[in-house]
Formats: sequence, structure tokens, C-alpha cells
Amino acid sequence: MLTSNNKNNDLFIGIDGGGSKSKAIIMNKDNEILGTGISGPGNPLHGFEQATHSIIESAKLALEDAGLAHMKLDEFVAGVGLAGVNIPVLFDQMAAWQHPFKNMHLATDLLIACLGAHNGGDGAVIISGTGSCGFSCQNNEQRIVGAHGFPHGDKGSGAWFGLQAVKQVLLSLDGLVKPTLMSAALLTKLNCSNDTALVEVVAGKKATFFGQQAHIVFDAANLGDEIALTILNEGAEYLNNMVRTLTKDNSLPISMLGGLTPILKQWLAVDIQADLKLPLHPPEVGSVIYAREQESKMLINI
Amino acid sequence: MLTSNNKNNDLFIGIDGGGSKSKAIIMNKDNEILGTGISGPGNPLHGFEQATHSIIESAKLALEDAGLAHMKLDEFVAGVGLAGVNIPVLFDQMAAWQHPFKNMHLATDLLIACLGAHNGGDGAVIISGTGSCGFSCQNNEQRIVGAHGFPHGDKGSGAWFGLQAVKQVLLSLDGLVKPTLMSAALLTKLNCSNDTALVEVVAGKKATFFGQQAHIVFDAANLGDEIALTILNEGAEYLNNMVRTLTKDNSLPISMLGGLTPILKQWLAVDIQADLKLPLHPPEVGSVIYAREQESKMLINI
Repeated sequence: MLTSNNKNNDLFIGIDGGGSKSKAIIMNKDNEILGTGISGPGNPLHGFEQATHSIIESAKLALEDAGLAHMKLDEFVAGVGLAGVNIPVLFDQMAAWQHPFKNMHLATDLLIACLGAHNGGDGAVIISGTGSCGFSCQNNEQRIVGAHGFPHGDKGSGAWFGLQAVKQVLLSLDGLVKPTLMSAALLTKLNCSNDTALVEVVAGKKATFFGQQAHIVFDAANLGDEIALTILNEGAEYLNNMVRTLTKDNSLPISMLGGLTPILKQWLAVDIQADLKLPLHPPEVGSVIYAREQESKMLINI
Repeated sequence: MLTSNNKNNDLFIGIDGGGSKSKAIIMNKDNEILGTGISGPGNPLHGFEQATHSIIESAKLALEDAGLAHMKLDEFVAGVGLAGVNIPVLFDQMAAWQHPFKNMHLATDLLIACLGAHNGGDGAVIISGTGSCGFSCQNNEQRIVGAHGFPHGDKGSGAWFGLQAVKQVLLSLDGLVKPTLMSAALLTKLNCSNDTALVEVVAGKKATFFGQQAHIVFDAANLGDEIALTILNEGAEYLNNMVRTLTKDNSLPISMLGGLTPILKQWLAVDIQADLKLPLHPPEVGSVIYAREQESKMLINI
């Protein structure tokens, strides 16, 4: 038996709740991960009920995975980092949740990603997955760049790359720009033969759909497609600017996170590629780091 | 009494059904408009029930306006031009409608706009309102440029201009580009003091909302705002290209239509401004022209 009780808060739950899944871990005081659990979407933007359900589910799965199924959630302090709670009304809603934990410390997905990447130290991250954003934390001052959503923001993200591809292919089908191999690739993938068919497929689609088309741009760029290269360089230039904005006038370490990291990193400016540090821990570990920090502040305040 | 019956099809109903309203006219054989009626949205993309209801309502109002309330819709041949029916499934749905007219001739809003503008002759139109597109009809061959929708298409439209303004203001709030007077104007209009507030206001909004912000770009450009001028010139350049694509290698007359015409015309290339002809008739007259053409073809085929 690992532990019969958790009165000294030796064990923490760390949660990373994103738009597509929630990940939970159980971590002991030696920073060992005893178990992990994965459940559905944890972003309250897409529904409070679903987010809270996913958080509880992932935590219970992590307990089971750790061989701690006999323990209750109210024996654990949880660090909960969620996408969406940068929006004040969603933060307030989640903070008011009658959660099942001993205590819950709520943070944005950005803060826990940054705390994880730099093991709780000052630092910055840029993230490109379906969406994009940048974040830094220095002397407890947080700064967010981007994280604005689609289609009005999230430049350099999968959704943005996919949307640019669709736009360019529509222009080429109208004869307003030259068609390139990217045009043929997108039409083949979406099984469309003309612009009307393409519009029927893409109309009203959300960021996730466009994010799934992003690889069309990367594949075409690798084959030397000029329009794809222009798109890729514009997206990379935005991410370069984000990095420079976040690390200018400071010596913050910076990491790149998100599903597009392996593809996009090589397209960033050479000096930025050299500066990027590999993240030390994943975001759910950042949630535990955050929860421990907050608990120790509470002890000081007593 | 204008007429006691309409057995010789001396009177036609012409309808222009758009995304925000439907307009109907009653026209006699001397091309006089005897009455007009305006009702709700007629674009079947937003619902078959509403579109068909709006069409009937506007037609009845036009009959009343013409002093012909005693006549029934089944005494009239109607030309019905609708937004949305360029999408085949919507065309088929509307064509299968058990309509109340003696006969109904269904066409796209683009065709009737072009027929109206050029009094039934060959010609082209570019349209910029909430959306944008170009269209030509020559020797019964129709060509559409754009009309792809938001946010993947409709460059140079109100929705596109508004979205560009939001994007630029978000970048400026992140310190990635210089804020200009356009930034202050948009934030004031939407009563926002920072990027989080702006994102809350714009997230998930449709083309109409962004179209309502377009004037921020035009006003700022008139005051010399460089970012607004860049946006405006990019949109105008797209419209220039549309005109050149539609009129290249032919001598088609071209007109500009849509709510942004009075504002945008002056930003187009000088040679294009000189070439633009004022439209001869509005789209609902184009619907009557279309219906008469189709009826005379039916007579020939008998």
C-alpha cells in the first residue's frame, strides 16, 4: 500500500484540461508520477457539465492507475489548469464549482504549461496546436500574447494554416492566383472537384476542422510549393515575433509546446531555434507545482 | 381597376431574396413597377420555411401596394432570384417547393443582379456588401468569382474588412504591431478596454457582426491610418482582380453593386472606376427579365 492517508498532502492531483481531452496525474512528494488518467474535454468554454465531469473522471482514472482506488478525491489537493479560464466569466464559474477535492487551485492552461516547462521557475512558452499563443511568467507577473481564438486570432496555429490553404485554393479555383500542388492536394483530400463543392465542405466548420487540413500546407512546402512556403513563412514569422516580444529585455528561458512543434520548429528563425529549450515537464506536472506553491502560501498566511 | 385577369401574363412578379430581406415587385408589360413589398430573409441557407414564407409575404405586400389585393398569386408568373441557391442542394430544395405561383423561374441572386444591371444583356457585376463576389453572363455562359462565404472567402467584403480590423487591433494589443487610431476606434465602439474583452465580444460572431465593424477601417483610412489603408488597399486589389478576371478578353460592361459600393468605388484602380457602369435596374427587375425570358423559351419549345 503506497499510503493509507494523505493528511500531510504528500500526494497531489495535477490536471491539464484542454479542448479535446483532460489529463490527470497523481504525484508524490518525490515528484514521482504514480498514475495517470485521460478523459474527455476539460475546457469550460464548451460546457461546464462536461468540463467538470471530465476533470473528475480523469482524476478517478489516475487514482485507479496508481493503485489508490480505495482513496477518495476529498483526500487530495488538486491543481487544475484549464483552457478557457483566461476568460473571466469562465474562471469565476469554475472557481465556484462545488468540486470534490480537499482543495482546488485553478489556473489557466498557459500558466501550468509554463510552470511545467520550466519546473516552476520564471520562463516563457509559445504554443502551436489547433490554436496558438505565447505566455510568460516572471516575478509572478504573467503576460499572454495571442490566445485569441479562431478565426480572428491564432495566427501560426493549425487552424490558421488550414484556413490559409482553403483561402488560397478558392482563389486559385477562381483563376485569381495560380493553382499549385497544394490546390490539388487539398481538393483530393476533401474529395472536391470545384469551388462549390469545397465551400459546401468547409462552410461553418470550426477550428478543429481547419487544423486537420494544416498538414496540406506543410507537405506542399516541403515539396517547394511557393504559395505553401509563403503561408508557412508568414505563420512562422508571427511565432518569431511572439518569442521576441516575450523574451525581449529579459533573459527568460523559452520552450515551444503544442502538436505542431515538431513540424514548425525548423521554420522559425535560426537564433530562435537555438534559444528554444526542451520543456522539463508536461503541463499536468505544472498543475501540481502550482497547487503546491499555493498551499505553501496558505501555510505562510496562517 | 388595373386588370381583371392576367391570362396573357402581362403582369409579372419579380423577387430578390437575400440574407436579410426579400423584395418583391409587380411589373407590367411596359416595364412599369406597379407595387413593391419587402419582407424577411429569403436565403434558404438560413431555413426553407423562413425563405418561402418571406417570398410569399413580400409578393402579397407588393400586390396590395399595387392595388391588386383581389388577385391571387396563382395568376402570376414569378421570377425568383435567391441568395444561397448557387449551392446545388438548396437550388433543388427550392425548385421542389410547392409554390403558390402560376409558374416560378428560380435563379441565383447573382444572375438576377446581372440581368437587372444590364437590362437583360450580356454583362458582369461585382458585389460587395456583407459578402463579396463577381459574376458574368455572356452568350448564356455564367461565371462566378468568389461568393465563397466567411471566413474562408469574401475578401473585400464588409465582413472581411471588419475581421481584418479585429485581427490588427488584437495584434496591436499584444504589442506585435503598432496601435493606430483604428485600434482606439474599434475598442471604443465595442466598449472594450483590452484584448480579453474584445475576444469575448467577437468570439463566435458571424459575418454580419464583422460587417458592422467595417466602417472602422474606412473611417481610419480616411484619416490616413496606415494599417487601415493597407487593409483597404488589399481588399480593393482583390476587387480589381475580380473585375479584370471577369472582363479580360471580352468587352463586357460591368457594374458594382452592394452596400459598400459608395465607399469602396473610390479605392478601386482608376481605369476600373472609369469602366464601371451604373446599374440600369435593381435585381428584382432582373428577376422579371429572367422570368419573361424563360416563359418565351417555353412558348418556342411548344
